[in-house]
Amino acid sequence: MAMPLDRTAVERVVREVLAEFQKGRNAPCPDGVASPLKVHVSARHVHLCPKDFETLFGKGARLTSLRPLHQEGHFAAAETVTIIGPKSRLITGLRILGPLRGYSQVELAYTDVVLLGIENVPIRMSGDIAGTPGAWLMGPAGMLELKQGVIRAAMHVHMSDRDAARFGVADKDIMELKVEGDAPVVFERVHVRVDPAFKLEVHLDTDEANACHLASAGRVTLKPARGKINVVRDIVNKGVRT
Amino acid sequence: MAMPLDRTAVERVVREVLAEFQKGRNAPCPDGVASPLKVHVSARHVHLCPKDFETLFGKGARLTSLRPLHQEGHFAAAETVTIIGPKSRLITGLRILGPLRGYSQVELAYTDVVLLGIENVPIRMSGDIAGTPGAWLMGPAGMLELKQGVIRAAMHVHMSDRDAARFGVADKDIMELKVEGDAPVVFERVHVRVDPAFKLEVHLDTDEANACHLASAGRVTLKPARGKINVVRDIVNKGVRT
Repeated sequence: MAMPLDRTAVERVVREVLAEFQKGRNAPCPDGVASPLKVHVSARHVHLCPKDFETLFGKGARLTSLRPLHQEGHFAAAETVTIIGPKSRLITGLRILGPLRGYSQVELAYTDVVLLGIENVPIRMSGDIAGTPGAWLMGPAGMLELKQGVIRAAMHVHMSDRDAARFGVADKDIMELKVEGDAPVVFERVHVRVDPAFKLEVHLDTDEANACHLASAGRVTLKPARGKINVVRDIVNKGVRT
Repeated sequence: MAMPLDRTAVERVVREVLAEFQKGRNAPCPDGVASPLKVHVSARHVHLCPKDFETLFGKGARLTSLRPLHQEGHFAAAETVTIIGPKSRLITGLRILGPLRGYSQVELAYTDVVLLGIENVPIRMSGDIAGTPGAWLMGPAGMLELKQGVIRAAMHVHMSDRDAARFGVADKDIMELKVEGDAPVVFERVHVRVDPAFKLEVHLDTDEANACHLASAGRVTLKPARGKINVVRDIVNKGVRT
């Protein structure tokens, strides 16, 4: 049988439940996440396969490291190429990221895509280039038509199995990134990529970094997305014309 | 004296409080907001005072409308100028927005700022240009040094008093804009500008629109920000180099 309620006690219970509820929603990285969070802005760049590299730089040419990147073994190369879009517009100094890969892929911000006039560039995870648009590349030793491989890279975070366990996420999960500062933004779809060799690092492109004014950012928080998100694939567009 | 608690009753109260709490946090635009929400992407542009317009286009020149903008009386002009940054880099075709104003002001995305090499461009509301950097402008009749007036426009929403009342906000309040789509983003600082003549319209720049892939966006929701936000002024930066 129901007993009469004591108001003070009920209020205390409600306060406690709300406090727990709040804590769950606003929790920063769970305790025990030791790795510092690094946010890296990837400017437009290109990955090349050995064959395409030779076409552009000549037989026997070697890719040389300008500076190492945060992920082990990766580097920004001294070599750059020119990318030419379908409207006779081009961007010079498109940096190659090494090492060479099994496929060639160009990663552009939508601002770059608009400048070049390339249509239907989708947001994709690296390597998932089937059916994407191509472009011409020009190097000191030759010109090359990429039949496909132009993408806007989906925002993602690299992490080790250990960091994934600490965040309570798995490979291919979605997290969200909150950037505080003078242009505060929450990015709600950050793809998780787990590999034992990965160091904890979020990759944004220049549009994303400029939109949230990352350079002025105060706190940056990465946490699991609140609900399951269906990843929409292949919504394509031309970006916004400037 | 405290009475023993009935568990079922307490749980019901907690559920009800939580439901109210949730409703408050996730509420979309309040019922009764009739005006459709328009999100406008402002590409880089310039506002000119009559004197500066004459310097660039010649004595007696008239600003002509290419197309009307959503806000009553505003238009994209047929006339454009060239903006020249401090590193001998320039952007041509910088469109003038009319009508002429009491002051000249250039609104750029940070991607443009980086391209031009202008340092310390702050995020500002339109008209708040004291202490901002300048640039050279070139028109068909002359060249002009703007001593100040280069800003990145703070994201903002125009609305009438009636829409403001419906949203429960006032001039200078902060709202947040949630963009769903294949690059979902919540912009947490949208400045409210209220005027009886304003139509409901959010203004983003091209970096912001490209970051959230606005062209693919599904639902876009505008609502009052959850807490008071201290607007940090004059954190400046050079954007992200591409």
